[in-house]
Amino acid sequence: MRLFYLLTVVSLLLFAACKHADNKTGKDKGESVQMTDPLPSWNEGANKKAIIDFVTKTTTEGSTDFIPVADRIACFDNDGTLWSEQPMYFQLTFAIDRVKAMAKDHPEWHNKEPFKALLEGDMKKVMSGGEHALLQLVAASHAGISTEAFNQNVKDWLKTATHPKTGMHYNEMVFQPMLELLQYLQSNDYKTFIVSGGGIDFMRVWAEETYHIPSHQIIGSSIKTKYEVGEDGIPKLIKLPELNFNDDKDGKPVGIHQHIGKRPVLAFGNSDGDYQMLQWTTTATGYPRLGLILHHNDAEREWAYDRQSHIGKLDKGLDDASKNGWLLVDMKQDWKQVYLKK
Amino acid sequence: MRLFYLLTVVSLLLFAACKHADNKTGKDKGESVQMTDPLPSWNEGANKKAIIDFVTKTTTEGSTDFIPVADRIACFDNDGTLWSEQPMYFQLTFAIDRVKAMAKDHPEWHNKEPFKALLEGDMKKVMSGGEHALLQLVAASHAGISTEAFNQNVKDWLKTATHPKTGMHYNEMVFQPMLELLQYLQSNDYKTFIVSGGGIDFMRVWAEETYHIPSHQIIGSSIKTKYEVGEDGIPKLIKLPELNFNDDKDGKPVGIHQHIGKRPVLAFGNSDGDYQMLQWTTTATGYPRLGLILHHNDAEREWAYDRQSHIGKLDKGLDDASKNGWLLVDMKQDWKQVYLKK
Repeated sequence: MRLFYLLTVVSLLLFAACKHADNKTGKDKGESVQMTDPLPSWNEGANKKAIIDFVTKTTTEGSTDFIPVADRIACFDNDGTLWSEQPMYFQLTFAIDRVKAMAKDHPEWHNKEPFKALLEGDMKKVMSGGEHALLQLVAASHAGISTEAFNQNVKDWLKTATHPKTGMHYNEMVFQPMLELLQYLQSNDYKTFIVSGGGIDFMRVWAEETYHIPSHQIIGSSIKTKYEVGEDGIPKLIKLPELNFNDDKDGKPVGIHQHIGKRPVLAFGNSDGDYQMLQWTTTATGYPRLGLILHHNDAEREWAYDRQSHIGKLDKGLDDASKNGWLLVDMKQDWKQVYLKK
Repeated sequence: MRLFYLLTVVSLLLFAACKHADNKTGKDKGESVQMTDPLPSWNEGANKKAIIDFVTKTTTEGSTDFIPVADRIACFDNDGTLWSEQPMYFQLTFAIDRVKAMAKDHPEWHNKEPFKALLEGDMKKVMSGGEHALLQLVAASHAGISTEAFNQNVKDWLKTATHPKTGMHYNEMVFQPMLELLQYLQSNDYKTFIVSGGGIDFMRVWAEETYHIPSHQIIGSSIKTKYEVGEDGIPKLIKLPELNFNDDKDGKPVGIHQHIGKRPVLAFGNSDGDYQMLQWTTTATGYPRLGLILHHNDAEREWAYDRQSHIGKLDKGLDDASKNGWLLVDMKQDWKQVYLKK
């Protein structure tokens, strides 16, 4: 008798546990999220609360601010928003490292600017060459090869190159609090997109794995590609030394329109290169919208820069954030840590 | 005692039923699919079998041909593959209808080619103007307005315009067997993309709802857009009379690379404009690949055209399908019906 009593209780408990497991998906997501902190690396404060309130109200069935899954589009800048960008964009470091590695096959570069200055280590002189110099560097390090070969070059570089200040591999210098935000949005059926001035091919090599953002949701700048079929019948896409699209400033809404075809409901950037992306996002109507700017003010744990910086300059964004209703995320105050948990 | 025995049995049955309900998702999808016909509008035959075999082997856990969800990319042409394209691309019909509607505000068009010929109904003369004439029509009917205004024009046209032969609205002239194939792939975690020579903006107005393909998975040709902020502070994207990208022929792999960043594992087209898309798909290695061409040979229920046609010409594709391992879908033989079920 006691045995049967025990069996009944155990069976009922197993059944109850099974049904409870079913119920923990889908509509009860809101309740589950409130029980655990979805942004553990963020300090409690107005910004963290605003983010969680936004996600909760837009994903809770019956809420007047509910956004259907199909319209949950969140766009993130990359350089300076998801990973660091000092002392220069990491992709520029890649370009420079590539030129150095290729130099032995290009003796003529020792007598030709901007390659001469670069190989002599005179970065100031390289930068003084302006956009023309930059395009030559990009052409040498990015073009004239297949997309496959380019991807392999990036992969190899990420394995070997380390940052002069932190000693970390570049794809380790991503922001833990932002990884948590991406994960939080993704688990609430937000489609997260990268919308970056950086190279679309460069990012796709590592960003899919690092951010759990699929390739087709990564938007960036590009040089042209050309379809070529070799004598062996094997087709390749060859990268050409010609700008295709610059996904920066007023280019970002253009890139968003081209790749996504919908207005985002959330956009997160860090510089004036993201101003139009945030403006395009938060002036749209019909749903709640959220714009955020990451303010780099943390010289101790990362870098402090804004109005005066050449890289990631933030000036108009600082002036207008408040009147535009954009949240200014304070790296020093809002983040418990900057980089990945060890 | 008997009561406790009964309670135990019932509880255990409830628990077992609950766990079984869990098990009917995910991994048992292969078994569920075999029980019902996923392509009811397709006649039994080699092509239908090949499609079902491909989906089954690439989605069954443990299969040597298993493709991880992240790489399940399927690309579809639109004109002539998902909907009809005779006697001319439906978007061209839209352009012509727009010019006619706008003519009252453009008296100068009565004395200017190709508008003069168009308004006089002389389509042969319009076409003789070649690409230059076409660009002028596109500029007039597609450019100089915001993306929002353009979308509204397309929406309105779809509600009112009907096909001269079938009397159907244009977005009703989609192929039922292809809708089933899209649905079949989508329910097996394939991401379905449109890769079309047609306009990306034009398609996104109606294709998302019709094909259940999200906007960001619709790839097409485009004219340039420009970000402009009005005096009221409201930003718009204005469509410019300048080609941005032609997503046709060797442009299709370029568009696939730009938007998706991965090689498809399945591609379905109907004309030589899809040759390179299929070639780019089936020459890729590492996974099983499937290329399909829809051969329009059904003069009674749709149209019959291939080598001689100006619209949707299929010539090299017919010659090479067999040696390339591409399936030639025979509209007459393979399809029980062409358009939507009534």
